[in-house]
Amino acid sequence: MGFERTGGETVYDGLIATVRVETFRHDDGEEVRREYIAHPGAVVMLAHDGEHLYLVRQPREAAGEELLLELPAGKLDEEGEEAEETVQRELAEEVGKRARSVRHLKTFYSSPGFTDEAMRLYLCTDLYDAEAESEEDERIEVVEWPLADLDGAIAETTDAKTLIGLLWLKACTSREDV
Amino acid sequence: MGFERTGGETVYDGLIATVRVETFRHDDGEEVRREYIAHPGAVVMLAHDGEHLYLVRQPREAAGEELLLELPAGKLDEEGEEAEETVQRELAEEVGKRARSVRHLKTFYSSPGFTDEAMRLYLCTDLYDAEAESEEDERIEVVEWPLADLDGAIAETTDAKTLIGLLWLKACTSREDV
Repeated sequence: MGFERTGGETVYDGLIATVRVETFRHDDGEEVRREYIAHPGAVVMLAHDGEHLYLVRQPREAAGEELLLELPAGKLDEEGEEAEETVQRELAEEVGKRARSVRHLKTFYSSPGFTDEAMRLYLCTDLYDAEAESEEDERIEVVEWPLADLDGAIAETTDAKTLIGLLWLKACTSREDV
Repeated sequence: MGFERTGGETVYDGLIATVRVETFRHDDGEEVRREYIAHPGAVVMLAHDGEHLYLVRQPREAAGEELLLELPAGKLDEEGEEAEETVQRELAEEVGKRARSVRHLKTFYSSPGFTDEAMRLYLCTDLYDAEAESEEDERIEVVEWPLADLDGAIAETTDAKTLIGLLWLKACTSREDV
């Protein structure tokens, strides 16, 4: 079973959200109309040095969360920048590190019922200090979380991408390559 | 550090998406403006009978996915319905089962940078066949996935809520209560 896009328009174009309404025709002839939030996608970094995981705490006003514990992440909104360059830039900006080893683990949709946002999760290891980078948001706090206490971070966070990274590490702790 | 909401308005109200622009004042006096997608929230069901996990495959046109492998889920959009009632109703509608045991595992935000959508993940066990329920969407296919092959489902799916449920099971397989 397949489908093709038969039309579409932008119905709202705001600061962050672009709302699209598109029509699709399935192979059996049915036409469906879908409204969704168009998003450029994001990279998410599971960065650790073998002892600590580098997390951030930041206010998420819209979700009503004062300080949400999250993996560092960034939007893919710089024209011409490859995803792995965004990984290095955002890792430097958010936690002051760069990684000699960057490995793609998984790409996933955050909420495919209403947005096309895809998040690419990378394992970042062999870390070194970044040259001082301008940090735009002073409300982002860097947290060095002990790898030995993954359960504590899983209990604290309520962020989906962060749970995926933490559970991935927890499920794979017996494997040597993580 | 805290903040309070100081104002807000709906700037787009569509089929699915409601876009809100709100202002918040942090305790240090700074005012920030946030645009986000208001969402009623959802329940997600990790339902298994000890041998098989009940998953669905469905087209997600907006994400460009022909058949995305997902945990059954449903929006919290029925007025006056408790979350656990939505769990039972959606489980019956999507996979034809009900659960004698429903346990809340975790609540998480799907993408807290631009939406307040919160997903509540429940472990549903001690399943029995539901009375025939009307299935609204014929494109949803039920998949009985062997619990012994969690890795196969983790490799196939690209849906965040589903990865969280599958990784949760994988990380906890040594525990007796899951």
